[in-house]
Amino acid sequence: MEPPQGMEIEAWFQASLAWAEAQLALAWKASSRGPSALPEALRYPIDSGGKRLRPCLVRLVCLECGGSEDQAAAPAVAIEWLHTYSLVHDDLPCMDDDDLRRGRATTHRVFGEATGVLVGDGLLTMAFEHLATHGGPQASAMVAVLARAAGPAGMVGGQYLDLASEGQAVSLDGIREIHRLKTAALIAAACELGALAARAPAKVQQAAGRFGWALGLCFQAVDDCLDVTGEAAELGKTPGKDAATDKATLVRALGLHGARAEAEERAAEALEAAGQAGFDPNGPASALVAWLLARRF
Amino acid sequence: MEPPQGMEIEAWFQASLAWAEAQLALAWKASSRGPSALPEALRYPIDSGGKRLRPCLVRLVCLECGGSEDQAAAPAVAIEWLHTYSLVHDDLPCMDDDDLRRGRATTHRVFGEATGVLVGDGLLTMAFEHLATHGGPQASAMVAVLARAAGPAGMVGGQYLDLASEGQAVSLDGIREIHRLKTAALIAAACELGALAARAPAKVQQAAGRFGWALGLCFQAVDDCLDVTGEAAELGKTPGKDAATDKATLVRALGLHGARAEAEERAAEALEAAGQAGFDPNGPASALVAWLLARRF
Repeated sequence: MEPPQGMEIEAWFQASLAWAEAQLALAWKASSRGPSALPEALRYPIDSGGKRLRPCLVRLVCLECGGSEDQAAAPAVAIEWLHTYSLVHDDLPCMDDDDLRRGRATTHRVFGEATGVLVGDGLLTMAFEHLATHGGPQASAMVAVLARAAGPAGMVGGQYLDLASEGQAVSLDGIREIHRLKTAALIAAACELGALAARAPAKVQQAAGRFGWALGLCFQAVDDCLDVTGEAAELGKTPGKDAATDKATLVRALGLHGARAEAEERAAEALEAAGQAGFDPNGPASALVAWLLARRF
Repeated sequence: MEPPQGMEIEAWFQASLAWAEAQLALAWKASSRGPSALPEALRYPIDSGGKRLRPCLVRLVCLECGGSEDQAAAPAVAIEWLHTYSLVHDDLPCMDDDDLRRGRATTHRVFGEATGVLVGDGLLTMAFEHLATHGGPQASAMVAVLARAAGPAGMVGGQYLDLASEGQAVSLDGIREIHRLKTAALIAAACELGALAARAPAKVQQAAGRFGWALGLCFQAVDDCLDVTGEAAELGKTPGKDAATDKATLVRALGLHGARAEAEERAAEALEAAGQAGFDPNGPASALVAWLLARRF
């Protein structure tokens, strides 16, 4: 599957990333950061880079729905801070116990475990403060969407299931539920926030959400395959870690062939939802799905 | 100082507590609680009892500002869930490492450390979801107030300073800053939320906030005294713990006499702010301040 004509995905990534970094820098300057050395610790995991996929998706959907970059800014910053909190807490010794993330020492390794907990708590809280303060007339609806996706019925629940499943035999449905809650819920929220920020009609918001759910599940299926087949540069982490830690993955449940088929099925669902939302079929939504499938998995 | 005529503080506590418990029970039924055994773990620290001071203050200020109990309900639930998250995280091994809270095993002792982190994350997120969903037209303003008070420039910053000060010589100003951020910010937020919920004019909101700040600092000063002079039943925890853990307290900085004087000064400030907010001088605000000073400290 080739990226559709008219959309250079690399150029889109570059422009989106530059925009996201600029919004994060502006929001940081205006934020409530606390006493002593806490601001330095809060900033450390935000500055660890990455693709900024979630803010890029907020912008993508907002623009596709006829909104502006300005309208996308507040939810874009909020969801990235919230995503960053989740990485900081997931890396804690009592959770996944990771020393490295994207080649740098994890927050608790640099600043200590107590500060790691507080940095996560702080970023999560700052995300909601920023969205409530700068989210405009849709602010409370956006806070509700983000919190639902991030809370016990979303990301927190997914991390809980993931930890509870370690060393257990997990059914295919169980794996899908973990992926749905842990990964896809927040990606779906990014897309819903983009549509909300653009004040799109309810039907478009719902289709944008379905686009996000399918994209998130596709993303996770591709990730499971790359853990087996990929190189570190492609994956952004050490390949083989899932197998080494006995993690429940789609590849383990379905085999590599089955997991690839699942990724392709989710990609097709994402494209269908993008069509229902009225996104440009030659635009970045389709190009992003194609890029995902074109990764060497 | 005797409680003013016309207000039986015990009756007020009873009525407020019953109302707060009823609101917490209703909100729990409607909440997004997540998969598997996570709901049980989320509920455990909420059910641990306590005075429910923060929701009672939301109701108190809302009613004094001419609002209704219905208007006070959403911020009351949100602030108690948020306060509960802070207790769960503060008790973690990497923080204050407490095995008991109000005579029961702490959340991480019952459900494990990873679940302790996730329960805190979940309750914090649920607090914002609840407020955004049920907060009515003031919802985004209330989310902003609550998040600012709870985040790095408030409670999270206070806990950070408190941990950083362990075993250090802390100045009187340093101790006051810890109390301001760690305790008073959220008590002030409870009062501001009550005024916001009642849609009180800006000047009344500000005076309500000052009432809360002074009340919170008074509360903390009394608590520091009770750690030295009080009995376990009065204090709700083991007396002498601050001294045993080498904690920076007002009593250590000012002596018992000086700390008592500070509590009385804050109480006077609270009464002055209550007057500026237009609260009934024979009502529960004054009675609460008098009750605080009448505790055997």
